[in-house]
Amino acid sequence: MLDVCLLGTGGMMPLPYRWLTSLYVRYNGHGILIDCGEGTQIAMNRVGLSPKPIDMICFTHYHADHISGLPGLLLAMGNADRSEPVRMVGPKGLTRVVQSLRVIAPELPFDLEFHEISDAVEDYKLEELKIRTFHVKHNVTCYGYSMSLPRAGKFDVDRARAEDIPQKFWSRLQHGEIIEHEGRTFKPEMVLGPERKGIKLTYTTDTRPTQRICDEAFGSDLFICEGMYGEKEKIEKARQYKHMTMYEAAHLAQKAEVRQMWLTHYSPSLNHPEHYMNAVKKIFPAAKAAVDGESITLGFEED
Amino acid sequence: MLDVCLLGTGGMMPLPYRWLTSLYVRYNGHGILIDCGEGTQIAMNRVGLSPKPIDMICFTHYHADHISGLPGLLLAMGNADRSEPVRMVGPKGLTRVVQSLRVIAPELPFDLEFHEISDAVEDYKLEELKIRTFHVKHNVTCYGYSMSLPRAGKFDVDRARAEDIPQKFWSRLQHGEIIEHEGRTFKPEMVLGPERKGIKLTYTTDTRPTQRICDEAFGSDLFICEGMYGEKEKIEKARQYKHMTMYEAAHLAQKAEVRQMWLTHYSPSLNHPEHYMNAVKKIFPAAKAAVDGESITLGFEED
Repeated sequence: MLDVCLLGTGGMMPLPYRWLTSLYVRYNGHGILIDCGEGTQIAMNRVGLSPKPIDMICFTHYHADHISGLPGLLLAMGNADRSEPVRMVGPKGLTRVVQSLRVIAPELPFDLEFHEISDAVEDYKLEELKIRTFHVKHNVTCYGYSMSLPRAGKFDVDRARAEDIPQKFWSRLQHGEIIEHEGRTFKPEMVLGPERKGIKLTYTTDTRPTQRICDEAFGSDLFICEGMYGEKEKIEKARQYKHMTMYEAAHLAQKAEVRQMWLTHYSPSLNHPEHYMNAVKKIFPAAKAAVDGESITLGFEED
Repeated sequence: MLDVCLLGTGGMMPLPYRWLTSLYVRYNGHGILIDCGEGTQIAMNRVGLSPKPIDMICFTHYHADHISGLPGLLLAMGNADRSEPVRMVGPKGLTRVVQSLRVIAPELPFDLEFHEISDAVEDYKLEELKIRTFHVKHNVTCYGYSMSLPRAGKFDVDRARAEDIPQKFWSRLQHGEIIEHEGRTFKPEMVLGPERKGIKLTYTTDTRPTQRICDEAFGSDLFICEGMYGEKEKIEKARQYKHMTMYEAAHLAQKAEVRQMWLTHYSPSLNHPEHYMNAVKKIFPAAKAAVDGESITLGFEED
């Protein structure tokens, strides 16, 4: 189960009525944050989320609207008595940028572990959660992220009984363990059906649409994507500054066959993103103009 | 005339309902900002103030809640097409701290001029406005600021006529010029009465009460002072962390014979500063628990 909260939906600069784009995902007691612009700690506080459980902070890139809130967030985590290390993931330069910003947050009661992305695609794990980062196309090096939670096949009680597997091992087999017992070997595949549909979430902003985004977002339950401009004539501006219009995002969502899409990272000039949704939904009906604090719980489907 | 706006009133961390303490003063087209924590640019936007005219940014010290909003503010000034240089004033380390934070704001369309404070008291000028910084007592090097606008004596038309001073020189004499004309020397004191009461504003936060604050704030029209704690029993905490209770601030205001005092820099645990004002006003009646955006125009008195 993933608890997803889009803390803010703004791009470029924070506004009195719109926090900067940042995603807070909770999974099994862990917090994962993607991007942290000025005010992200306030947006978090506003929706009642604590900064303390954040085990991983990921950055798409280092434009200020995606990282300027980091010193304040780290201090807030320290004030909340965080002591466990925090993993940080981001493009090359991560250590330099973060340590430079830490001039005003030099002392923290926890360690930072830096993972600088060097390949076009990289994979991380947090327990069962797979976190994947992939290169996108902005005017500086920038990455998108997807998180997926696989789901094992259904436990087949009849087969377990037929194979005469002691009931005390069922749970361990269901969790993927191989068990040796009195000369016999019990394997998960003896009792589990084919792998079932898991959960997938993809987040990408500050990029032109690319085939890689389409491939990496493919089949997502939720695709959070920038929709910087709603006015169709701003396509040239989007191309120039390496952003996307809402319609380009909708075409991506449609090609990537995602279940639903939330738009975010609105230009400060875009006062009413919802005004453009009729046109956007003609391309991809399950599109939503996300608002600050937009939340959803992504769970496994009923069998 | 000074237009004074206290953009925020919080200390330590920004909250959804309280911006961090920062003062925006407007004088004759110039903007002067003291302190710039996370969210200051948003607080400014909320009250309709532009970051563009800010000619001077002053820092009391470099704890994050007083400077973390700087990169965002500088970028916002750049986006507003600022091109004139900006003077920055702050304790030693200013250049290092600001340049370090600029890792995420490396390119700006204006220059920064750094003035690191090295003496216990230093004076600056912006046209007629005198800006004075003075050392206070925090757990790191910290300074308070006062701004004063002197006012020349009243122009005495009868004396000017008696001295046979041509009327075309009156305005220049009134503005302090000495004029040589046809072998005669006209001096301002020939036509001006004694200097009249000007305007004085003093701002100090993150400090224990000191005699120097009392001396520097003496006679201020407005004294903006931290009142971190309202609970009387927090005096020990105030001593330990080098802050002030509201009552200590009130005693300072009373000793400094200021006209009025605004309290600010409330602890995040202080939800209702106004609840303590009855007790505070017993010490200093013209005290106010300032709120975000608290504003006043300080003008010269009627003669």
